[in-house]
Parts: sequence; C-alpha cells; structure tokens
Amino acid sequence: MTTNNVQPARGTRDFLPADVRRREYVIGVVRDVYERYGFEPLETPAFENIETLLGKYGEEGNKLIFKILKRGEHEGSGEADLALRYDLTVPLARVIAQYQNELPKFFKRYQIQPVWRADRPARGRFREFYQCDIDAIGSTSPVVEAELLGAVADVMTRLGFQDFVVRLNHRRLLSAILERSGLPRVQHGEALIAIDKLDKLDRDQVTLDMVARGIDRQTAIRCLDAFTHPRTSDNSALLESLETSLSTHGEGAQVVSEVKELLQLCETTAAAGRIRLDLSLARGLSYYTGAIMEVAVPDLAGSLGGGGRYDNLIGMFLGRDVPACGFSLGLERIIVVMTERKMFPDSVEHGAVDVMVTLWNDKSRADALALAADFRRAGLRVEVYPEADKLGKQFKYASSRNVPFVAIVGDDERARGEVTIKDLRTGGQLSTPRTEAAAHVSRLVSLSNSSNLSNLSNVSNSHSND
Amino acid sequence: MTTNNVQPARGTRDFLPADVRRREYVIGVVRDVYERYGFEPLETPAFENIETLLGKYGEEGNKLIFKILKRGEHEGSGEADLALRYDLTVPLARVIAQYQNELPKFFKRYQIQPVWRADRPARGRFREFYQCDIDAIGSTSPVVEAELLGAVADVMTRLGFQDFVVRLNHRRLLSAILERSGLPRVQHGEALIAIDKLDKLDRDQVTLDMVARGIDRQTAIRCLDAFTHPRTSDNSALLESLETSLSTHGEGAQVVSEVKELLQLCETTAAAGRIRLDLSLARGLSYYTGAIMEVAVPDLAGSLGGGGRYDNLIGMFLGRDVPACGFSLGLERIIVVMTERKMFPDSVEHGAVDVMVTLWNDKSRADALALAADFRRAGLRVEVYPEADKLGKQFKYASSRNVPFVAIVGDDERARGEVTIKDLRTGGQLSTPRTEAAAHVSRLVSLSNSSNLSNLSNVSNSHSND
Repeated sequence: MTTNNVQPARGTRDFLPADVRRREYVIGVVRDVYERYGFEPLETPAFENIETLLGKYGEEGNKLIFKILKRGEHEGSGEADLALRYDLTVPLARVIAQYQNELPKFFKRYQIQPVWRADRPARGRFREFYQCDIDAIGSTSPVVEAELLGAVADVMTRLGFQDFVVRLNHRRLLSAILERSGLPRVQHGEALIAIDKLDKLDRDQVTLDMVARGIDRQTAIRCLDAFTHPRTSDNSALLESLETSLSTHGEGAQVVSEVKELLQLCETTAAAGRIRLDLSLARGLSYYTGAIMEVAVPDLAGSLGGGGRYDNLIGMFLGRDVPACGFSLGLERIIVVMTERKMFPDSVEHGAVDVMVTLWNDKSRADALALAADFRRAGLRVEVYPEADKLGKQFKYASSRNVPFVAIVGDDERARGEVTIKDLRTGGQLSTPRTEAAAHVSRLVSLSNSSNLSNLSNVSNSHSND
Repeated sequence: MTTNNVQPARGTRDFLPADVRRREYVIGVVRDVYERYGFEPLETPAFENIETLLGKYGEEGNKLIFKILKRGEHEGSGEADLALRYDLTVPLARVIAQYQNELPKFFKRYQIQPVWRADRPARGRFREFYQCDIDAIGSTSPVVEAELLGAVADVMTRLGFQDFVVRLNHRRLLSAILERSGLPRVQHGEALIAIDKLDKLDRDQVTLDMVARGIDRQTAIRCLDAFTHPRTSDNSALLESLETSLSTHGEGAQVVSEVKELLQLCETTAAAGRIRLDLSLARGLSYYTGAIMEVAVPDLAGSLGGGGRYDNLIGMFLGRDVPACGFSLGLERIIVVMTERKMFPDSVEHGAVDVMVTLWNDKSRADALALAADFRRAGLRVEVYPEADKLGKQFKYASSRNVPFVAIVGDDERARGEVTIKDLRTGGQLSTPRTEAAAHVSRLVSLSNSSNLSNLSNVSNSHSND
C-alpha cells in the first residue's frame, strides 16, 4: 500500500489537534461577538437537492458543484440527484422560504460551515473550506449596515488585528458617478470591472482596459477622474466633494446623504474610526444593491472579508424581493494570517494538557487514576501515562507533548502521603500533601498561563526516582 | 414554485437557532470533559477518495455510501471518484497512517463531525447525522479503558443524566464462557447474535433462535445457563461465580482477573458505582477484541453510546496491528432524550438576546446604536430594532423573540439623560441614568438568569410612551 492512499482527497485537509485548536479559537470569538449583536446560529445540511443549487451560480459555478450519484438501482444511470453545498447564501434563501412563518421578521443569522467547490486546488485555495457568514434579513434601515460593520470591526479587534480598515462604498453611488460622467447604464458593469483594478493597476492601464471593454476614451477618462479626485482618505473631504459634484443629480445627491448618515452611525459602533469611504471598491457587483464593504489589513493584498446589501436575491425561492445585508468573513485567510503573525494566545498554541500523571508501576494504576480524577474535578486537563515505564521516558513523552507539569506518586511519596510535582520546562520540583495536590497544580497552571514563568524554577531538583 | 422545492434533502435536517443552541450545548460539554481527559480534537474532510472507504463496511455498508460524480469532461462517465465520510473510524485509521511520525505514541483524539449514510430515513434515523467519537490509540493498558469509562460517565453526569448505567462485558470472557459450555469456536459469532437479544426476547425464544442458527440444543441451554446465572446485578457476586466456573479454563481465569482489575480501576474514576458487568452485552462483535461497553438509561430502550477495545482494526492502512479502544456517544439520541426530558438549562432554552434597544424615531438611530455598543461592551447580547415603529409593536416583537428586557430612549429620557428599562415578562419598568444603564441591565440579566424572577415586578408602570 503506497502512502498516496492515505492522503486526504485532493484539495481537502486533515486538521490535526493544533489546527483544530486555532480554528476553534477564531470561530469561538466570531460566534461570541455575533451573538452580542443578536445574530443567531443556523446550520443546514451538507447536501441539497440538486435543483436547489443548479443554475444559482452561473455557468462557471455549475461546473464547480460536487454532484452526488443516485443510489441503489439508479446508481448505474450515472445521474446525480444531490449536490454538496456551494455557499451558505442559497441554503439561507431556501431556509427563509421554508420556515417563513417561524422565523422572526428581522431574521439575523450567522452560519459557520464548510462549503465545497471543485476548483483547481492552489496555494490557499481548497475544495473544502469554511465560510463564515452573517446576514440580516427583512429591513432596509441603515441601522442594519451599521450593526453589521460594528460586528465585523468588533471581531477583528477581538482577534487582535490592530491595523484593519473597513473600505466602504455604495452601489448606487457608483452608478450615479458613472452616469454623471456620461457613461450609459449598459456599460456600468464593464466599467466597474475595470475600475475595481485601480488598486492593482495604474490609471493608464485601467483606461486602456476600459477602452478595450468598448467604453469611449473621453468618457473613460472622465469616469476615472471622478473616482480618483479628490485623492484623499478623509471621508469628510470626499463626501464634500461628492456633495458638490452630484448636487444636481437627484439620485446621486440622495445616496450621498445616505452614505453620510451611515458613516455617522458607524461612529457610534465598534467600527468608529475604521471606515474608509473608497470609491474604487467595486466587488462582484452583480447582486449588490446598496452599501458594499470589505475589511482589509494594510500590508496584505486582498481582503479578510466582504459583503454588502443585496435586496433582490434572498427571496429567490419565495418569489418576491426580501431586503438583506450580509458579510462573509474570510475565515481560512484569517487563520493563515493569524498563524503567520503569531497572533494566537499562548493558551491556544501550547499543549492541550496541563498535567500528566506518571505511572510508577502496574500496582499503582488505581492511585494514578484517583489523582487524575482529583485534578479533573479541579478543572485541569489531565493525561495519565497508560503504561508503567521508566520515569525519564514518561517525562520525555510529556515534554514532547508540551505538557508543563508532571505528577509523580512513587513509593516514597505514597508512604508520606505526598505527590511530587515537576515543572518540565525548568526541571524544578517540589512535594505537596496528596490532599492539596489538585489545588496546588491549579495554582501553578494559572500562574504559568498568566506569566509563562514557573515559580518552581528555584526549587531544588530533589527527586531521585528518574 | 411548490413548497416541496424548499425542503432540505430527504433524510437531512435544517437546524434553526434553537436547535443549534441545544446541539452546541451538548457538544460543548462533551468537548470540555474529553479535553480534561487529555483527548485532542481531530477533523477530517467530508469526502475521501472512494478507495479509502469502499470495502471497509461490508456489502451492506458499501451500498449506503454516498458517491460523488467525477467532474468536468469525466462527469458523463457516470463514475465516482470521491465518497462522503461514512463513519469517523476509517478516517482516523487513515490519519494514523498518514501522520504516523507526527502523532504522539498514545494518540487520544475526539472527533465530532457529521457522517452520511444512504439509509432509508425513518423516525430518528437520518442520512446526515453527527458522530461523537473518542479513541485512545497505542496502548493495551487497562488504564485506557478506565479513563474512557471515566470520561463517558463524566459527560453523562455533566449533561444531567442521573440514572445512567454503564454495561460492561469482555469479548474474551464471552469466548471463554461459550467454550466452557462446549460450543465450538466457529459457532461463537452466531451464538452471540442470539444472546445479544436476551434483553428483548425471553430465554425460550433465544434458545429457539440458537437452534435455528445450527447450535446443538443442549449446548445452547448450557450457554444460556452460563449467561444468566447468577441472576445478579452485583458485580462482585457475578465475578465470584465466574472465577469458580472458569477456574480451570486458563484464558478464562486470566480474563476474569483482568475484568476484576478494570472494575477496581473504574472505582477511582467518575464511573465509580456506575458500571454493571453484564454478560448479555454482546455488541457488533465483529471487530472488538477486549472490553465492550454501552451506556444506558433504565427507562429507555437501546443505548446512548457504546464502544470497546479493537486492537486489529485501526492499523488497516498501516499494515500492522495497532491497539485501540474507543467510545462513540449517540449525540443525536442524547439531544432527543434531553429535549424530551427538558434537561437543557434555561440559558439554552431561552432567547438568544438579553436586551433589545428600541428605536424612538429615525433621528435617534445613533443614540440607539451608542446604547447598544455600551451594552455589548458589558458583555450583553443586544438586538437593535432596526426601524422606527410604534413602541408597542417593538415590545411585541421582543416578546415574541423571548427577549426579557427592552431599553427605551424617548425624548423625555434623552432630556433627562436617562434610559428606561422595561421587563417584558412582568411589565414593570424603571428609569436609570444613561451612564449606569449597561451596569444596571447586566445586573438584571444575571438576576434573571439565576432566579428567573425579575426584580422589576413591583415597580410601577410609569412609562407612557407606548
């Protein structure tokens, strides 16, 4: 049997304990924050009836859907009747239609589950990956956007990102600017695809791209002027300039005042001081209808998440428009960045065990288990070395697993009613009455977690049994 | 569009917020307990290369595997190259082969993930359901079994099951008893299938079943005698009787002493007093090699989980035997039973929001968001009603969502620098300075969580804005 056979399927990953701990830490923070904002958890099945998914993601998307063969006598037909979840938005739309009478009027849900796409695997691109979505359904109020932005800013802050910025733009503002620049509505889509590249290409290249997309050269230049002046990261200055340039454009003036209010509302939330109005933010504009947003870190290309208002999509199974505004955090990317930047707390990066109870000999199994039970009642995470073996070997095993403390009940200790606790990082050790061992180790572990220094370091190495 | 189109696929379920909260509560307890026992989390992909799964679950199992169609130009072939995870054991075996140099010698993992089986859906039987496995790999020491049993007993206790019993038996003990009763080894499998039914059928029916399975009638009666005498739930009495009856059977005497030690070890763990040695426990014996166990609640048919030692299976991809002992909790069943018995804490069953901030009018959006931000900084879960609407309607909405408190900042309150807090369950309300509102609501919420009584109930209903 070759080792090839034991790899996970192409484009998928096994998460070993250290990976799961990091992932769970991030998910835990996200959940906790989202729940403070009144979002509630939703989970949907891994697969859907194939008709639910087909035709929802365009031609390209259709090709990337994993399809499940019919079973039993129909297997030979080669037909599929089920398909793996491709995103969390279509299942949400289905849930909203199915449970319309049970869900609250303003349904705010978060959903953190894997999705599957038959993309060609590449660095950072997987066939199984988690999405982490919040969506607020049922209201067109700007309170919704402000709350969403506040929640996302809170998540980033709680995760330890200190330099993040939320780029904000508005689909109707983009339309007004383009229209004002003399670009016919039918060409807005093409123009925005080009303008979206302003953060990667220079102005001349973007102009060429626009012309290549069939846009009149002079109009293209006027559009780019409108998007790049004033060159400011000061929201007020930009708003002022937009107020002037769009003052006679009815819809434009209206949307500028909406954006202005949204920016003011955000200042009362955790997103205060984080929002940068950025006209070059376009995103996949096909379904957004209002505010669009992306969270970014200055020294990192691309975003850590994005979203916006999309009032015409979530009612797809209901047959009527339902207002919605959502944000999808780039969970996989966040985990990569946090790992590279060593942003995980020590409690996540360190071992999963606080103390290992060594096994003196086969006769002392019950003693070891009883001590472990004491430790566990005190809330400690405890490993029991299962086999009687040289103590040195047991210590080495504990060290290799990053366990900070080991407990030893040898014949001497038993005779004295004591337990010896050894700090494996310093080599220091001391004895403590058996009845106080659990409280003692708890203290050592919390000290160690808070300072990463052990207070055993100056204790003489007096134990001779290893 | 018929409502049929928006249902989840046959045999799968959507989990709405209240469902997810219950599931997460149980999973949280399980994880916390397992981590105290030194088990670490593992996650594997939803699908595996099809060769990894095919042929591992017998002919019946093969038919129940969901297979994924090849993609792109190969889709038309009707062939499958991937398949959905059918259990968590084969993926574990694969992981152990793939990462043999990275994993600790005594690898103890828990894994809580969905599996998929194309079974005919029925009451309580789903095509997507969670498994919740712990397995300790790499040691044959009875410390492993004792720790496993301790962990499971701890989970049951922490979940609030007060009357659970852990049935324990041993595969080699069963063999010795059958051999001692004169049954040839080749018939042990058949005999055990029949004997496993002793808790459902009466003795005569089981005898008939054994005879139908080709077992000599007198031998069958001797076997049943051996399994049903002494009729005792006293482990010591049963052990004593086995010590006598198997005293001259070398292997039998050995295994009795092993079981005796295991029972003694368990008395030092959280399983103390919970273990009942039960000779009629057989389980799917095909791969167990040592102790077998099941956790049960007296008034409930079937088990809430089971497991045992299986030393010849987990090395399937390594090509050599690797000792292993595992336990699988029946997560879905546990959730059903806990729901029926109303065992979930109030914090899980109640709404997900502590306080809703009402919206006085469109001009007060920023005020409402600022108050919500204050509440959230105090750790509260806060909903902001997004639209200016009649207060009565906002109260009704909060009530329908089980939100206990609403906060009101009307024109009067704003003028006085105050916030009115209303307890929706009692109708009582009082005003508090804006700066103290967050601390005040925090106190109300913890009082309410601890007593389910509100201390606002005697306050006069003085607010007139609704």
